[in-house]
Amino acid sequence: MQKNIAIVGAGLVGSMLACYLSRRGHKVSVYERRPDMRKAGYIGGRSINLALSHRGWKALKGVGLQEAVSKISIPMKGRVIHDTNGGTAFFPYGKEDQAIYSVSRGELNKIMVIEAEKMKDVNFHFDQRCAAIDFNSNTITLYNDNTREDKQVQADILFGADGAFSEVRYEMQKTPNFNLMQQHEEYGYKELEIPADKNGGHVIEKNALHIWPRKSFMMIALPNLDGSFTVTLFAPFKGENSFDTIKTEAQAEAYFQRNFPDAVPLMPKIKHDFFTNPTSSLVTVKCFPWKHQNACLLGDAAHAVVPFYGQGMNCGFEDVQELNTLLDATGENWDDTLNKFELQRKPNADAIADLALYNFVEMRDLSGREDFQLRLKIEKKIAQKFADKFMTHYAMVTFSDLSYNEAKKRGEQQSELLDKIMSIPGIETKWDGDEVLTIAERWIAENRN
Amino acid sequence: MQKNIAIVGAGLVGSMLACYLSRRGHKVSVYERRPDMRKAGYIGGRSINLALSHRGWKALKGVGLQEAVSKISIPMKGRVIHDTNGGTAFFPYGKEDQAIYSVSRGELNKIMVIEAEKMKDVNFHFDQRCAAIDFNSNTITLYNDNTREDKQVQADILFGADGAFSEVRYEMQKTPNFNLMQQHEEYGYKELEIPADKNGGHVIEKNALHIWPRKSFMMIALPNLDGSFTVTLFAPFKGENSFDTIKTEAQAEAYFQRNFPDAVPLMPKIKHDFFTNPTSSLVTVKCFPWKHQNACLLGDAAHAVVPFYGQGMNCGFEDVQELNTLLDATGENWDDTLNKFELQRKPNADAIADLALYNFVEMRDLSGREDFQLRLKIEKKIAQKFADKFMTHYAMVTFSDLSYNEAKKRGEQQSELLDKIMSIPGIETKWDGDEVLTIAERWIAENRN
Repeated sequence: MQKNIAIVGAGLVGSMLACYLSRRGHKVSVYERRPDMRKAGYIGGRSINLALSHRGWKALKGVGLQEAVSKISIPMKGRVIHDTNGGTAFFPYGKEDQAIYSVSRGELNKIMVIEAEKMKDVNFHFDQRCAAIDFNSNTITLYNDNTREDKQVQADILFGADGAFSEVRYEMQKTPNFNLMQQHEEYGYKELEIPADKNGGHVIEKNALHIWPRKSFMMIALPNLDGSFTVTLFAPFKGENSFDTIKTEAQAEAYFQRNFPDAVPLMPKIKHDFFTNPTSSLVTVKCFPWKHQNACLLGDAAHAVVPFYGQGMNCGFEDVQELNTLLDATGENWDDTLNKFELQRKPNADAIADLALYNFVEMRDLSGREDFQLRLKIEKKIAQKFADKFMTHYAMVTFSDLSYNEAKKRGEQQSELLDKIMSIPGIETKWDGDEVLTIAERWIAENRN
Repeated sequence: MQKNIAIVGAGLVGSMLACYLSRRGHKVSVYERRPDMRKAGYIGGRSINLALSHRGWKALKGVGLQEAVSKISIPMKGRVIHDTNGGTAFFPYGKEDQAIYSVSRGELNKIMVIEAEKMKDVNFHFDQRCAAIDFNSNTITLYNDNTREDKQVQADILFGADGAFSEVRYEMQKTPNFNLMQQHEEYGYKELEIPADKNGGHVIEKNALHIWPRKSFMMIALPNLDGSFTVTLFAPFKGENSFDTIKTEAQAEAYFQRNFPDAVPLMPKIKHDFFTNPTSSLVTVKCFPWKHQNACLLGDAAHAVVPFYGQGMNCGFEDVQELNTLLDATGENWDDTLNKFELQRKPNADAIADLALYNFVEMRDLSGREDFQLRLKIEKKIAQKFADKFMTHYAMVTFSDLSYNEAKKRGEQQSELLDKIMSIPGIETKWDGDEVLTIAERWIAENRN
């Protein structure tokens, strides 16, 4: 039976949901607070490039968007670590054919809206801010901040896919027994740029994610199609090496010279960008329930995570795909589907939120340490040898569709094994020997059967 | 310098704040969403009676309200525990002259509004819902749901004292870097009543807090001036012995007969009350910062706690008094005061929130167990013997103004001592002997110097 479905938010998750629901034969109206990004251009300056990985591709494939998106994505096969002397080292993420894919949020969003709109019974409405919701009748009051007009729309099913600062969630927060946690890090981030060379080429390794790990802070760079890199500085708001210590152009210059000397010559506009672009904050949102009557949150609206595992979008896309699978499984019993959806997804959303926080420590600190680099090498060696029983933790999250919760649990288990191996005296020289594999084989026999 | 101060919320904390600020010479306007409780009557049916204790009295005294309030309060000198066979036992809270005081929220609120309004430059405005706030100009948009009119008021300083579901906090939540946790228990509560006898007398012990502890749920009763008791059932929403299991009058009757047989004959309207009164939820709210520009949260708006330590109001009153002390200390530097206020109060608000959750376990389960009753007896004995160095945990929270955070820490420490004493073989007979005091004396020498 065709349903009249309203989606608040025309971002990545909202547009993908529109695609899936249109394919199921429903009438879908998407309401977006911002202007049409196809006309207005995407408002950047505070958006980290995204890293598409297995879960995201799988969901895109499920609705025929893989080809269109692959045209705007650049494979990153590993990390290039930049040390304070300007030296670099490359660490592959997985096997030779495995990569995560750099993609601009703005470009991806445009493609998804364009593709969704081509589908049957999908309509996008821009400049429509969700101002209030009556959940009893599933009526949304929409307000146009330009014309100062409001209107009301009614839907059979209402989805909140309106991001970390979701208006749908704010409304749901006022219903009984809604639990919420919104926690900001004491870190901010600022977008900067490494421009292309004169010929539009990339001036540092194109097929990698670049990291300048500096223990308590870091800079990263992801490649763009036009030869530039989107650079992001993550630093504490206050204290040592913080944004707070950079008030003047001279202070900015000294900061970057001291910490990222090899990057400075590549960033001619660095001082301009630093003082023009905003310093954004990093938030984790956990809430429950996601479903209230005939309304449901998904994507960042239900579970905003910090960006350090590159899984925010991938998780949101996986939400949509799992919802679709549940609609199949229940014969489109919506109430049953949404109840199962929140119960099934919540532990996974919590897990990726925690993993993303952990991965900040890995990126800004551990990734630059030799003992940790050795640890990853050993983990990979074990994964190669016992491929059917052991995946690296990174691969579980990034190159598989094992549930995030299971990936987290297994990662914690494996961490005990790796702790044990790393404590072997002389492991620096012995790591490639038989002892490591023997220990791993025994551990696998005990833990993975 | 006289400030123009707006307080959102004319509840207990809002009215007390109005009194203190008026005494300091400020112009105070209090805006309350609900109608004037002096005319409309207080909307009950979901309000646990309050237990005033030392911190609350101290704040009342500071602004001359002690006498007026003592007229409507009834001392409760201890717990009366009711077992499933109808047997009872009395456990004093502290020394002979120590008590907590039962007071009706509605009556107390009326007195406080009346007293506050007598003071200079204090004005109350009812039926004024805070609909929006512009923190840059400290302008509040107030909406009257009856007349459907809105107006705007501007203040030098704005306080949000509008309770657990604070509108001021909802507005603050949308400002950058606001951290929030709102967590509901899987328990609800429902207000019931033990009426007075024909002569207006109390039918069970008047000067006590009555508890029917039943491990995973409980009923309590607090005395009222008119001879009645306000009774509250706390039970899980779902599962064994839950509200969910009581759908019919027969089920209600069986539930109360089975669990509270001695109370049933005292509650003739029990079935009516059970199906008429709402089942309310229990929420803990933690947030930070409390101050944003020239606005500040306090009371439940900043730190709603579950009611099981009877400290919600007492903590809110202590907020007001500490704010007043800081205004003295800073020479009325408001910015400095509010910055210090949130830093100083936040750890204490967190501590009492945690203690209140813990105390639910103590009330519904431990208080009915013999070993726990013995433990409290031993703790008291130690406190009597070493009065200058050792207070019972309950006394630290209830009969002292030691900071909640310190009370929590000391309570945790003392718990280790009591664990040790309780593990002495044959402690049931030995508890009154010298061994216990010797162990305690040594522990105090090691830990309290």
